[in-house]
Amino acid sequence: MKTILVEKPFEIKIAEVEKPAIENKDDVLIKIISGGICGSDIGIFNGSNSLATYPRIIGHEYGGQVVEVGDGVTDLIVGDKVAIDPVRSCGECFACKNGRHNVCSTLEVTGVHRDGGFAEYIVVPAANAYKIDTSKVPEELISLVEPYSIGAQINARGEIKKGDKVLIMGSGPIGVCTMQIAKARGAEVVITDIVTSRLERAKEMGADIVVNVLEEDLSKVIMDFTNNEGMPVVIDSVCSVESFEQSVGMASPAGRVVVIGLLSKKSAIAQVEITKKELNIIGSRLSNYRFPEVIEGFESGVLTPEKLRTHSFHYTEVVKAFELIKEHPEQVCKVTLRFD
Amino acid sequence: MKTILVEKPFEIKIAEVEKPAIENKDDVLIKIISGGICGSDIGIFNGSNSLATYPRIIGHEYGGQVVEVGDGVTDLIVGDKVAIDPVRSCGECFACKNGRHNVCSTLEVTGVHRDGGFAEYIVVPAANAYKIDTSKVPEELISLVEPYSIGAQINARGEIKKGDKVLIMGSGPIGVCTMQIAKARGAEVVITDIVTSRLERAKEMGADIVVNVLEEDLSKVIMDFTNNEGMPVVIDSVCSVESFEQSVGMASPAGRVVVIGLLSKKSAIAQVEITKKELNIIGSRLSNYRFPEVIEGFESGVLTPEKLRTHSFHYTEVVKAFELIKEHPEQVCKVTLRFD
Repeated sequence: MKTILVEKPFEIKIAEVEKPAIENKDDVLIKIISGGICGSDIGIFNGSNSLATYPRIIGHEYGGQVVEVGDGVTDLIVGDKVAIDPVRSCGECFACKNGRHNVCSTLEVTGVHRDGGFAEYIVVPAANAYKIDTSKVPEELISLVEPYSIGAQINARGEIKKGDKVLIMGSGPIGVCTMQIAKARGAEVVITDIVTSRLERAKEMGADIVVNVLEEDLSKVIMDFTNNEGMPVVIDSVCSVESFEQSVGMASPAGRVVVIGLLSKKSAIAQVEITKKELNIIGSRLSNYRFPEVIEGFESGVLTPEKLRTHSFHYTEVVKAFELIKEHPEQVCKVTLRFD
Repeated sequence: MKTILVEKPFEIKIAEVEKPAIENKDDVLIKIISGGICGSDIGIFNGSNSLATYPRIIGHEYGGQVVEVGDGVTDLIVGDKVAIDPVRSCGECFACKNGRHNVCSTLEVTGVHRDGGFAEYIVVPAANAYKIDTSKVPEELISLVEPYSIGAQINARGEIKKGDKVLIMGSGPIGVCTMQIAKARGAEVVITDIVTSRLERAKEMGADIVVNVLEEDLSKVIMDFTNNEGMPVVIDSVCSVESFEQSVGMASPAGRVVVIGLLSKKSAIAQVEITKKELNIIGSRLSNYRFPEVIEGFESGVLTPEKLRTHSFHYTEVVKAFELIKEHPEQVCKVTLRFD
């Protein structure tokens, strides 16, 4: 079968590898239909993703059709369309035993730590494959369940609920996925960016207030919006040294700050800001069994992955897709790959 | 009446001021019996407490006897012995409306933002006065309900429960108060310090493992204790730039780090550590109505304030008490003042 293989940094190719076979009774064989390109795929390509090892079949946003099931599989049948959760965990460590398998001490993410879904076929445990009704959701969008699951996890970790005032820093794919789920939970959302087209998309997808931080004073917007108290919830999807520092500063007393960055460069954070406001600074990584709620949102139409996806390529054109993302970030939100 | 007044930094005296009178129907007049000296009192004395204004009657750890009650007071009668919660809040701001009055946007702490309890008398709202049975708790120890309430708040914020493995950095008064409450909740506690006598006290008060970080490799102790996973809960009562950084590093995946420092100097914190381990970094300040549970612990004997208190002085000897704390920190845990 054909795959998208990163041999080593800056060497990507369509490679021919052996088609995988079911090994365990709980496995399913999936014929991939759709993949979604994430910033971390590009990080594996350009060598900036410190978690990845090489050579690597990339892709952690993907979905397809079940073409074979192991003897122990009861919930899926051949023909089902599924979105795949890329998280693999041990079930035995402290995190797993405490219901937090997404930070398993020996965590593996398909497409990062082990081979992923940008391939014609993949074998995964049936428990990682979530059925989705493609009479309601276009097949090419099933790979977008994964980025929305990141937004769902952020909402869960931030305990976002009806009436919450939420600031999301950044209108990239994760920012807008998080925003739509926060809106579905009944929150009011202010979202920022420096690119007008991204802010227009965020507004169209449901954001209450959009702020171009190059043109407006964000602090003033927030203070007006919150009667000078600061933001009860701040989600940093910019993930820079400065955005983390700003997020802590803009949170209100008793506020929550959700951090999702993987940057190892350090931010300067004073403990007085955390103590004085009794903040919760909350990490959010991958997702902890959030696929079902996202699929429900896709099927009901509450979530609009069709508005997230701006471009589609055949998987053999992956290099062209990467170039578009690099050269015209202002045009791109989410790019999907077709595996037909 | 006489009070302990800090006129301005480094000028402290026993001052004569007018005895306060009940102004509101919900007030009570308290004749002070006992005060506890906190590091922040010394900070007001030496000018390092950025929250305080001058001149200031200090003291936020105190208790006494009700000698007069306002017309609207129903829960207290003259003669009751009470511990006083120093937190005053507005009831109207975001934090107050969300049950977090201890981080009220216009918070005032008696003894810091307004005059405190190192005085012969004080008038406080009856709601801030918690009755304590002095047939079970020596009168001189009622001022120690407040520091234990800080430990109770830390435990509540850190959601410490039976079976949790908890690291407390520092065996000062707040460290050991927090440790005893964590033990009462069923946690296993490792506590650190650099002073042997403090570690001996912590051990005697119930700590499971004590570590002198000048003599032992804390990381190794923790990794042995947690099967190489890191600490599920870390409480930083050292409150230095480095101790906050270390706390984040020593937490396990899915761990909680409780921060209580008021230091404005910044720590270097990488967001990858928070995201990768999906940490919760949790501020804890003062206490959010934690006096009742502490008083119950005092009365039942589960908490041992008599072991926390190492020295007692008459309030007129406050300068001598401050000198002892400054010159012989290795001998001192908690110093109380008598107002007889």
